[in-house]
Amino acid sequence: MPQSEVSYPRLHVMQHNDTSHTDHHACGARVRIPLDELTALLVRIFERHGTSAHVARVLGRNVANAQRDGADSHGIFRIPGYVSTLASGWVDGHAQPQVTDSAPAFISVDARNGYAQPAHEAAQALLIEKARSQGIALLAMHDSHHFAALWPDVEPYAEQGLVALTFVNSMACVVPHGGRRALFGTNPIAFAAPRENGYPLVFDLATSAMAHGDIQIAAREGRQVPPGSGVDRNGEPTCDPNAILDGGALLPFGGHKGSALSMMVELLAAALTGGNFSFGFSWAQHPGAQSPRTGQLLIVIDPSKGAGANFARRAEDLVRALHDAGQERMPGDRRYRQREESLAKGVPVAAADLARLRELANG
Amino acid sequence: MPQSEVSYPRLHVMQHNDTSHTDHHACGARVRIPLDELTALLVRIFERHGTSAHVARVLGRNVANAQRDGADSHGIFRIPGYVSTLASGWVDGHAQPQVTDSAPAFISVDARNGYAQPAHEAAQALLIEKARSQGIALLAMHDSHHFAALWPDVEPYAEQGLVALTFVNSMACVVPHGGRRALFGTNPIAFAAPRENGYPLVFDLATSAMAHGDIQIAAREGRQVPPGSGVDRNGEPTCDPNAILDGGALLPFGGHKGSALSMMVELLAAALTGGNFSFGFSWAQHPGAQSPRTGQLLIVIDPSKGAGANFARRAEDLVRALHDAGQERMPGDRRYRQREESLAKGVPVAAADLARLRELANG
Repeated sequence: MPQSEVSYPRLHVMQHNDTSHTDHHACGARVRIPLDELTALLVRIFERHGTSAHVARVLGRNVANAQRDGADSHGIFRIPGYVSTLASGWVDGHAQPQVTDSAPAFISVDARNGYAQPAHEAAQALLIEKARSQGIALLAMHDSHHFAALWPDVEPYAEQGLVALTFVNSMACVVPHGGRRALFGTNPIAFAAPRENGYPLVFDLATSAMAHGDIQIAAREGRQVPPGSGVDRNGEPTCDPNAILDGGALLPFGGHKGSALSMMVELLAAALTGGNFSFGFSWAQHPGAQSPRTGQLLIVIDPSKGAGANFARRAEDLVRALHDAGQERMPGDRRYRQREESLAKGVPVAAADLARLRELANG
Repeated sequence: MPQSEVSYPRLHVMQHNDTSHTDHHACGARVRIPLDELTALLVRIFERHGTSAHVARVLGRNVANAQRDGADSHGIFRIPGYVSTLASGWVDGHAQPQVTDSAPAFISVDARNGYAQPAHEAAQALLIEKARSQGIALLAMHDSHHFAALWPDVEPYAEQGLVALTFVNSMACVVPHGGRRALFGTNPIAFAAPRENGYPLVFDLATSAMAHGDIQIAAREGRQVPPGSGVDRNGEPTCDPNAILDGGALLPFGGHKGSALSMMVELLAAALTGGNFSFGFSWAQHPGAQSPRTGQLLIVIDPSKGAGANFARRAEDLVRALHDAGQERMPGDRRYRQREESLAKGVPVAAADLARLRELANG
């Protein structure tokens, strides 16, 4: 049943009482803590707030790694949303995913109203085995909640020499090109490919013009957003982030092309998996719910089956040519730099956030 | 070896001597001829200008169908480019593609410097068989020339209830986001999915902001192009189509996101297949050559393996929701409308172009 109203992700930021110390981050003094310590803290939070020990381990690691890589919008920023969603009863933190070997190169996963990451993990070894033996393999997941960054889902395949592509639909907040009402989710696409002399090439892009969290940040900071980002409650284009948030909606990136890609994500991640469309679920009975109950599609390819002698070397050639043409930063580079710094010096976390996390873990 | 200079597709338009009759089309009086007659005419042209009878049949049908569907930039508009390329010796019109069954779900095709369409056709039945038995299958083609629209490559799979996705790289004419020099091709992506009560959902989009032919048409008509379409010879953004054509280059659509997708197309269509990158070939020894010698990747999925009971019905649900949200035209709709009109009344062709085609076929 399509929802009659636009549903937005409600991305709460943590409230900071401690504003006595400030650094270059707007959100107060930052401290650095070891990745293991942050992960353990997050695992405790998940367990305390309604997940199994296993789900807590998978999600805790996922969120800690996003924070480690400087992907702030999917790091500890998301914890209140996870806690709130678990408390609402909308998601099952104890779900046991069901993996079905549907065909030699096709795996179906019923996440059973649990999080996508543990359901994906349950099928990962089989997916890799199938990709290597068949040349390409697909994972079609439904009834899953994806509330995280998408790049962590594909990067591990590239680390094993495989090429991976994934699609997730989310919740109606993007107006199709030429339409008047939000229907698509921010519907991201992520891709990962190995290269010979460096970290994998990995990108993760929303098919909306802006991520919803970035609109909220612009509103908070009193900035206009670029033309083409969204519409107001009357469907008129606006650069005012408050007008987008107050009954308006986002637009696809790149006009009709981004809209076509977003439609493709609905077809692949929902229609093909058996999951809900972004407009096809209602959490009205679960106040506090924030994660979309939809689907995800993952395609993994073994490039060694191709005629190209050495995919990773060819990818390296492309990177060299891109550098020569003046593109300094490859997709993923910023994350890798942050990662190295976090592993060397600890993961940066606002002191006030850390205090709040400790409360959530122990209080 | 990367080329040191930007190479552009040189899309010649036919010269019209007959300007005495004009209708709403700028290019002179239009006549309508039956599709079969147009196809036969084009097949004769291909055969006369250097292809085998089989290649002529495949390409003649491809070009006639593009004209039938109103895809003017890939209809008979392309014939001079085909003829010129064949005359240059750059492409082999008699190539015998070599199909290798690399793995249960992976086919490699060496087009052996011939056109992509006959090479694709040679592997199509095997690809469908693999997709149906394995759930997903991949075709990796290299050493191929793709000079046509991309949607005809995927639409037939959707007509058989399958979902298809394809990527082709082309020739360096697009500057990567943040770069200074053209490196990517226009690198299109095409997608097709069946629906229950209508023609398949099919899109075919260049990852460049504009197609190169559209820049040429804007220049001819004295129009500016939208901001973000291209840069001049100094790498500065410009809305002047002549500055883009005169030593400048195109930009990706949608900024860094389109650029990331274009990079993905290079990795999938070239690195993974063993084909050339868009910057990785030189036709300097073949004046008149216009078609890129690169690669193509095709992924075909059998949606009946998924948990979704009926993919085509779900796709229909999505179309209904899109209509309800105000998106009137689905991807492909304009082509289907033109197609129906062409099949009922004949395919529209400018009278002067038809005369020129007859000269090429017989002269």
